[in-house]
Amino acid sequence: MARQAEVTRLPMAAPDDVSAIAAAIHAGRIAPDRIVAVLAKTEGNGCVNDFSRGLSVMALRALLAPFLPADRLDALPLVMSGGTEGGLSPHWILFHETGAEAEHAPDAPPALAMASALTRPLHPSEIGRPAQAELVRDAVARAIARAEIAGPEDVHYVQVKCPLLTAARVAEAKGDVATDNMLKSMGLSRGASALGVALALNEVDTLPHRAIGHDLALWSARASCSAGIELTQCEVVVLGHSAAWTGPLRIAHAVMQDAIDAPAVAGLLETVAPGAGLQQAAPRIRAVLAKAEASSFGAIRGARHTMLDDSDISSTRHARGFVGGLLAGLVGRTELFVSGGAEHQGPDGGGPVALIYES
Amino acid sequence: MARQAEVTRLPMAAPDDVSAIAAAIHAGRIAPDRIVAVLAKTEGNGCVNDFSRGLSVMALRALLAPFLPADRLDALPLVMSGGTEGGLSPHWILFHETGAEAEHAPDAPPALAMASALTRPLHPSEIGRPAQAELVRDAVARAIARAEIAGPEDVHYVQVKCPLLTAARVAEAKGDVATDNMLKSMGLSRGASALGVALALNEVDTLPHRAIGHDLALWSARASCSAGIELTQCEVVVLGHSAAWTGPLRIAHAVMQDAIDAPAVAGLLETVAPGAGLQQAAPRIRAVLAKAEASSFGAIRGARHTMLDDSDISSTRHARGFVGGLLAGLVGRTELFVSGGAEHQGPDGGGPVALIYES
Amino acid sequence: MARQAEVTRLPMAAPDDVSAIAAAIHAGRIAPDRIVAVLAKTEGNGCVNDFSRGLSVMALRALLAPFLPADRLDALPLVMSGGTEGGLSPHWILFHETGAEAEHAPDAPPALAMASALTRPLHPSEIGRPAQAELVRDAVARAIARAEIAGPEDVHYVQVKCPLLTAARVAEAKGDVATDNMLKSMGLSRGASALGVALALNEVDTLPHRAIGHDLALWSARASCSAGIELTQCEVVVLGHSAAWTGPLRIAHAVMQDAIDAPAVAGLLETVAPGAGLQQAAPRIRAVLAKAEASSFGAIRGARHTMLDDSDISSTRHARGFVGGLLAGLVGRTELFVSGGAEHQGPDGGGPVALIYES
Amino acid sequence: MARQAEVTRLPMAAPDDVSAIAAAIHAGRIAPDRIVAVLAKTEGNGCVNDFSRGLSVMALRALLAPFLPADRLDALPLVMSGGTEGGLSPHWILFHETGAEAEHAPDAPPALAMASALTRPLHPSEIGRPAQAELVRDAVARAIARAEIAGPEDVHYVQVKCPLLTAARVAEAKGDVATDNMLKSMGLSRGASALGVALALNEVDTLPHRAIGHDLALWSARASCSAGIELTQCEVVVLGHSAAWTGPLRIAHAVMQDAIDAPAVAGLLETVAPGAGLQQAAPRIRAVLAKAEASSFGAIRGARHTMLDDSDISSTRHARGFVGGLLAGLVGRTELFVSGGAEHQGPDGGGPVALIYES
Repeated sequence: MARQAEVTRLPMAAPDDVSAIAAAIHAGRIAPDRIVAVLAKTEGNGCVNDFSRGLSVMALRALLAPFLPADRLDALPLVMSGGTEGGLSPHWILFHETGAEAEHAPDAPPALAMASALTRPLHPSEIGRPAQAELVRDAVARAIARAEIAGPEDVHYVQVKCPLLTAARVAEAKGDVATDNMLKSMGLSRGASALGVALALNEVDTLPHRAIGHDLALWSARASCSAGIELTQCEVVVLGHSAAWTGPLRIAHAVMQDAIDAPAVAGLLETVAPGAGLQQAAPRIRAVLAKAEASSFGAIRGARHTMLDDSDISSTRHARGFVGGLLAGLVGRTELFVSGGAEHQGPDGGGPVALIYES
Repeated sequence: MARQAEVTRLPMAAPDDVSAIAAAIHAGRIAPDRIVAVLAKTEGNGCVNDFSRGLSVMALRALLAPFLPADRLDALPLVMSGGTEGGLSPHWILFHETGAEAEHAPDAPPALAMASALTRPLHPSEIGRPAQAELVRDAVARAIARAEIAGPEDVHYVQVKCPLLTAARVAEAKGDVATDNMLKSMGLSRGASALGVALALNEVDTLPHRAIGHDLALWSARASCSAGIELTQCEVVVLGHSAAWTGPLRIAHAVMQDAIDAPAVAGLLETVAPGAGLQQAAPRIRAVLAKAEASSFGAIRGARHTMLDDSDISSTRHARGFVGGLLAGLVGRTELFVSGGAEHQGPDGGGPVALIYES
Repeated sequence: MARQAEVTRLPMAAPDDVSAIAAAIHAGRIAPDRIVAVLAKTEGNGCVNDFSRGLSVMALRALLAPFLPADRLDALPLVMSGGTEGGLSPHWILFHETGAEAEHAPDAPPALAMASALTRPLHPSEIGRPAQAELVRDAVARAIARAEIAGPEDVHYVQVKCPLLTAARVAEAKGDVATDNMLKSMGLSRGASALGVALALNEVDTLPHRAIGHDLALWSARASCSAGIELTQCEVVVLGHSAAWTGPLRIAHAVMQDAIDAPAVAGLLETVAPGAGLQQAAPRIRAVLAKAEASSFGAIRGARHTMLDDSDISSTRHARGFVGGLLAGLVGRTELFVSGGAEHQGPDGGGPVALIYES
Repeated sequence: MARQAEVTRLPMAAPDDVSAIAAAIHAGRIAPDRIVAVLAKTEGNGCVNDFSRGLSVMALRALLAPFLPADRLDALPLVMSGGTEGGLSPHWILFHETGAEAEHAPDAPPALAMASALTRPLHPSEIGRPAQAELVRDAVARAIARAEIAGPEDVHYVQVKCPLLTAARVAEAKGDVATDNMLKSMGLSRGASALGVALALNEVDTLPHRAIGHDLALWSARASCSAGIELTQCEVVVLGHSAAWTGPLRIAHAVMQDAIDAPAVAGLLETVAPGAGLQQAAPRIRAVLAKAEASSFGAIRGARHTMLDDSDISSTRHARGFVGGLLAGLVGRTELFVSGGAEHQGPDGGGPVALIYES
């Protein structure tokens, strides 16, 4: 018997608006106990003082609490990514199993497969350091197994949510930490997670000394990592293809080499819908998952950008809006999961893009 | 004898960096007394307290002062548009004549033609009202004549820089003004100018009562207007095609119907370079001139945007970065003149785009 | 038998941190069913997209839900004011009754008295218009009665939380609204509420035609109003003195004539602690409740301010931080309830200040 | 014969508004060739992309150019400090000599004395390191001598403007730099300058290894330092008392121990005008020169502040507005030179304050 993955994209009128999810549950389109993970793009600033994420999590947990045991709810990856700059539109993406008991046709192609896994709680001294990468690596391997994905080469996207360092945690570790700066710890934690994914997916062989946060030539083409203050462990969601799953959904990925690498995205869209014109594949695309960042060297194809010099707007906000505009133009939709902070996730100034689509 | 237009795009390392222009003058590539207009994208916020524009103007005037009589310098349109959100790159665009005394080949096609004109100083009570539209209409007609453009149908782009209302000007008019709010007066002045262009280009027949700022169904597909505190008159620059001009440069325009109307831009690029792939026409494109704005109804193709609800970042900054990303992805370059505040310049939430290119 | 009011100020480590309130309830210092109102200063931007307020409300309601019937919880005024600019510190202020059955000493002075009242739900066409002012006027009168305050002259502070106009409500009213701009509707609603308070307290005799939002010479010296999207009715909390109440707490108020009117505040502190030096009364001050705003005429005592020209930071954020610094310097503490948007609440550029203190 | 110092405070309607200075020169109140230094508070964000400073400098230089030889103009300290948050008012402060040939009364008290000095250009590898501190120390000593101030104990304020590291300078030093981060280099350069002042004034004996930027217990009570991209050397202006100078002007200073240390400022005002009430000394105060910053430990007197967690507004902007409000309330004026970035200038979270006043 084959499993079937479903990906449901729903609108959000405000960070605490879960009405569309409630309606989908009520209508039987989503079974709460078969939800594997929830991603959302919320409308805060995506930086330290973004309270839209916490508000969405609180509202979503309140909605799901009557349906799930507390431990199941606590273990459910809820990845809120703040920042809908430019025309990006706040939205929910629910990854769930249909529960349909489908007979697997012998010649059916591999379909979208998904699973999550958790690391153990990290000690503050491990955050942003090789120990974190190793824990994430192992969690990715477990999630691959749970998703019945044959191997790393069939994985197209790994979402990681990871902890960060607060003053209290720095004190707990008696100063033996990667950094005592909260904002920096977010970047190092994301970077360590991304390199953990890269290790699990054989994109990187070993982790050289002091690579995290420094050696930007090491990166994963399939990792998307975000840090959250509410966690002490890392949550991992793996998406790929597996013959154990059935249904029409597929996933593909590419890497933008810089912030204007539209050809990479166009190539990905050609995979989804060969020969279709600009924006024509939109109805078949369920979700767009991308990372964006300002290049650290201050330029795009030799032309200066000002994202790192703007003391009024964080560079992460600039980058999301800009790459969001590019993706929206190519795809034809503004409900796009464009996330900032792409340390070791794609090359410096670029980032991974994944599409989930109906084949 | 035919005239020849040249359009030179140059980088800017800071708002007061005119070194690239100085070098071009020194090398004989630009003759200061043949400059028709200068546009620039500077890195301020593009809103009320954007001092990057004034700094660029002051530096540019200091550079040109030794070459031009004071009245010529004063009459030269210098249009600084603030805001290089996302990956947009600060740059100068100089519109100048080569001065080459070219014999006009009998069968040579019409080429890029350009000229400027000024209105008389506006009384504060005229700003943002039909009187301004009529003055701009007449100035556009004069510039068309000066550029030896046969008629409105051969015009592809009109840049207008127009005055705004300050407290002092409101007092001067004894309160008989369109608004006593400075920021609002910028929008009304841009809108009145755009409708003046629309009248001159036969895009609109007459100006209904109370249309300015209200009837968003009236718009020009070829106007780009910005308001500046330093002006009392309107400066107009007209770009089009004329048989009296020669050389390889051409101009084309289109209208984005909304902020993600990539097909409109792709169609324009197809005009420039039929059959060329994504980003392949970049080397032949001299300048991209576009308007961007957040739709007033809070959505793009039915999906909510948050640009108008963000009290931390002005919607004009959001819109420039987002549309800038779309254009950069399609064109393959980040030196793009994307300007905000598109009242009556294209449909609500969309805007005109013009390309100057080598044929 | 006399009632006794208590005012408990508690720290907040994040918008959803209700741990200090939980501890106070657990320790028996606060009885949930005797809470009259909760105010809080939360750390969002205090503007349209401030999600810290909603997060605090959700966390507080979750904390109180087990203790109160749903209708009691729904009717409890929870006034979250966003914005802790400068050194202001996020904090909770709980207004509650001790429940002590104290015999009233015959010669005991009047003590702090408090009560709340609600208006009926407002029709969208009433928001920001005289109808709202009249409803608030009547609710203030009811709260005065409930608090057993002898008359308007014994009232020192009235907190109003009031609704605003959203696109949906504008549509419901078929356009018959005070404004179709959401941000503007917040100001008009606050202003109408403040004038309602002024009517109830005999600070204003009648409401002239078109006074709301225009005639800034009409104002209350004791109103503090904030608008919230979650309401359809107005919530009113009245604080004053009454012989029916006992205990050590008192309240006093003054009006800052402009943003640097330290003498007004110093005079108020002299009331609290005659002859005490700068900052010496701090231990006896329970709560500081103030309004701040940028003067609409762009100057303070003739010197230009730039709050209204700053397109990067809202003037309300500037004003809160600046007046917050002045108050913190005089009082000696940063847990101050300084709220922005002072339409008809004190003179243009100034605002009311109230102190609750131990006599 | 005695020299006489004059300090003239003038309003500024915009960063490029030098009209008040022009009028003062025209009226003979300021002799351009006797200007010692010019300070200004301009209305930009005070951070990396603050173009109001450059605009003011360009306008001021254009005004003074006809009066001064180029080398004199180049050597004139022009210290523009960005940021008029809250109600702070943009203004100029000109430090100049009257040129009056006054006979020095034998028993006349020491009066305000002033002089400037420059270091040699710094090599990029010296910026933010002990070498810079030593160069500043020596320049302060030279300025003290030029001002005929008897010794360090008679110095009350030292303004330093110092260079920062850009990408080009980092490359020039082949990476042998204190930091490759531009924003960080501003802090380290300010800190090194402040410690240089502390050495010159005997506030610190020696500079321990790695003290700059780390050992916040080392600080000057009289230094005010700002970094500017246009410099390669350090400019130093020393203000103090000297028997070689005459006239009514005096200077006094104090140190705020934290951001709400109003008593320290009140004590200073008591020096200026013993027994005068709040704000009563304002007419006699010519200039207020202060430093403000957010405490690095995230609290003021134990209460959490949110300045360091606000990703929308720089903590330096928060701190200036907040301390500006406190100072404006005590002094009674909003034209205050409150500058941010107080590394090694006063204790962590506090800063020096100096008053220039008529005795």
